[in-house]
Amino acid sequence: MSAGTIYGLGLGPGDPDLMTVRADRLLRGARHVAFFRKAGRKGKARQIVEGLILEGATEHPMNYPVTTEIPLGDPEYNRQLAAFYATNTEHLAALARAGEDVVVLCEGDPFFYGSFMHLYTRLCGQVPVEVVPAITGMSAAWTASAAPITWGDDVLTVLMGTLPEEDLAARMTTTDALVVMKIGRNFEKVCRALRRAGLYDRAWLVEYAAMPGQQVRRLAGADVANVPYFSIILVHGQGRRP
Amino acid sequence: MSAGTIYGLGLGPGDPDLMTVRADRLLRGARHVAFFRKAGRKGKARQIVEGLILEGATEHPMNYPVTTEIPLGDPEYNRQLAAFYATNTEHLAALARAGEDVVVLCEGDPFFYGSFMHLYTRLCGQVPVEVVPAITGMSAAWTASAAPITWGDDVLTVLMGTLPEEDLAARMTTTDALVVMKIGRNFEKVCRALRRAGLYDRAWLVEYAAMPGQQVRRLAGADVANVPYFSIILVHGQGRRP
Ligand SMILES: C[S@@+](CC[C@H](N)C(=O)[O-])C[C@H]1O[C@@H](n2cnc3c(N)ncnc32)[C@H](O)[C@@H]1O
Ligand SMILES: C[S@@+](CC[C@H](N)C(=O)[O-])C[C@H]1O[C@@H](n2cnc3c(N)ncnc32)[C@H](O)[C@@H]1O
Repeated sequence: MSAGTIYGLGLGPGDPDLMTVRADRLLRGARHVAFFRKAGRKGKARQIVEGLILEGATEHPMNYPVTTEIPLGDPEYNRQLAAFYATNTEHLAALARAGEDVVVLCEGDPFFYGSFMHLYTRLCGQVPVEVVPAITGMSAAWTASAAPITWGDDVLTVLMGTLPEEDLAARMTTTDALVVMKIGRNFEKVCRALRRAGLYDRAWLVEYAAMPGQQVRRLAGADVANVPYFSIILVHGQGRRP
Repeated sequence: MSAGTIYGLGLGPGDPDLMTVRADRLLRGARHVAFFRKAGRKGKARQIVEGLILEGATEHPMNYPVTTEIPLGDPEYNRQLAAFYATNTEHLAALARAGEDVVVLCEGDPFFYGSFMHLYTRLCGQVPVEVVPAITGMSAAWTASAAPITWGDDVLTVLMGTLPEEDLAARMTTTDALVVMKIGRNFEKVCRALRRAGLYDRAWLVEYAAMPGQQVRRLAGADVANVPYFSIILVHGQGRRP
C-alpha cells in the first residue's frame, strides 16, 4: 500500500469563491479533513468550508491547548504548543501511513505566518506533504480598501502587532507601504506606534476581509472599541506612477 | 441600457489551477478579454489563460509603448506611459458604457505592483470597476521553495530590484524575511546588496514560480547567467517556533 499525502490546503481569506480551483477540487474530494481551532470554537478555517465537505468525510479538529492565556515569551507556552504539534503530527502521519490522504484546512496562505508550518516541518521526511498556496488575508484587505497597496518601487513592510511598540514605530517610520497583522489586543499599541511614525492619518483598518462582517474604515475618526483577531491595518504606498 | 463592468482579474502566479473559482468563472464567461503585453510578445497573462477563453470572445491586447528602452527616471518614459494608460482607459470605458463587461487579465494580484492599477485609478468614477484578488507571485515562490517565509513575529520586507544598491543593502540588513522582485537586469546589483547585508548565503532564487520552467535554487553556488523577468529572490525568516 502506498502512503497518502497530507495537504496544507490554503483556503484564502474567507470567501469560498476566492479559493483556488485546486483547493476547491481537493477539498470536495477529501475523506479526511483536519483543522486547527480554539477549544469550544468552530475554527475559522472550518467555517470557511461550511457546506463544501464531502458527505461522510471524517473531521479531525486540532484544539490549541493555549492561545492568549499564557504570554508568548513564557517557556510553558512553547512547551505546550510543541507537545500539541507533536501529537497532531503523529496522528496525521499515521493516517498517511495507512494510505489516507488528509487535507489540513489553512486560513489564507499556509506558508505566510500560518499554523500549518509547525506540522509541515515535523511531517517532512516522514510522509508525503504538499502545500497549496492561497490568497493571503492582506491581499483581501487591500482589495477591500479599493486602493493599490504598492506602486513603482515602493517598499512594503509586513509587521505583526505582537512586536514591541518601539520596534513597530521604527519599522513604520522607514517604509513606503505597510501591513500590520495580529492586531486584536495589540490595537492600542499599534495605534500609538502609527502616531509616532506619522502614519496614523493615512492608516486604514480592515476587519474580516472577504469574510462575513467585512468592514473597511480609516483609523482616524473611527470610534473603534473592539478589534477582532481577523483585522489588518494598511498604509498604502504613494510610489511612482505615470 | 446599464453600463458594463471592468474586472481587474487576478490570475495568480501562472498555473491555471491556482486561479480562484471566481476568476475562473468570470474568465470562462467573458466576451471581452483585455491584457497588457510587450509589442511582439504574447503577454504572460494571456499565456496563462490559453485554452480558457470563450470561443468568439474579442481580445483587446494593450501593447506597452516602452518597457526598458527608456530609463524609468526619464520624463519621456512617464509621458509615453501616461498617454498609453489614458488611451486604453478610454477604450475600455467606451466598451463598458456600451453595456459590455470586460475582463482585464492581471498576472498575480492586481493591487500588488500590477499594471492594472494605472487603469483602475483612471476608470474609477467613470464606469463600474471591480478587482478580483489573486495569489501573488511571491506566495508561489515561497511555496516552490518548500519552506515557510515567515514565523512568529518575523518582519517581512518586499523590495524591488529597481532600487539603488545602497537602499537595497540597508533594507536587507534590517529585515527578518525578504522578498525581492523585478530582478531581471538588476540581478548583479541585487546580489551585491545581498552580500553586503550578509544574506547571500541564505538566499534562494525562484524563476517562473508555478509557471512552465519553474526552477528553485540557492543563489550561492548557482551558476546564474540570465535571470528572467519572472524571478523572485527569497530569504526565509527564522522566527519563533515551538
Ligand atoms: C496567524 S496569521 C495567518 C495569516 C494567513 N496565513 C494569511 O495568509 O493571511 C493571522 C492574522 O492574519 C490576518 N488575517 C488573515 N486573514 C484575514 C482576513 N480575511 N481578514 C482580516 N485579517 C486577516 C489577521 O491580522 C490575523 O491576526
Ligand atoms: C510588475 S510585478 C507584478 C507582481 C504581481 N502583480 C504579483 O502579484 O506577484 C512583476 C514581478 O513580479 C514577480 N513575479 C510575479 N509572478 C511571478 C512568478 N510566477 N514567478 C516569478 N516571479 C514572479 C517578478 O519578480 C516580476 O519581476
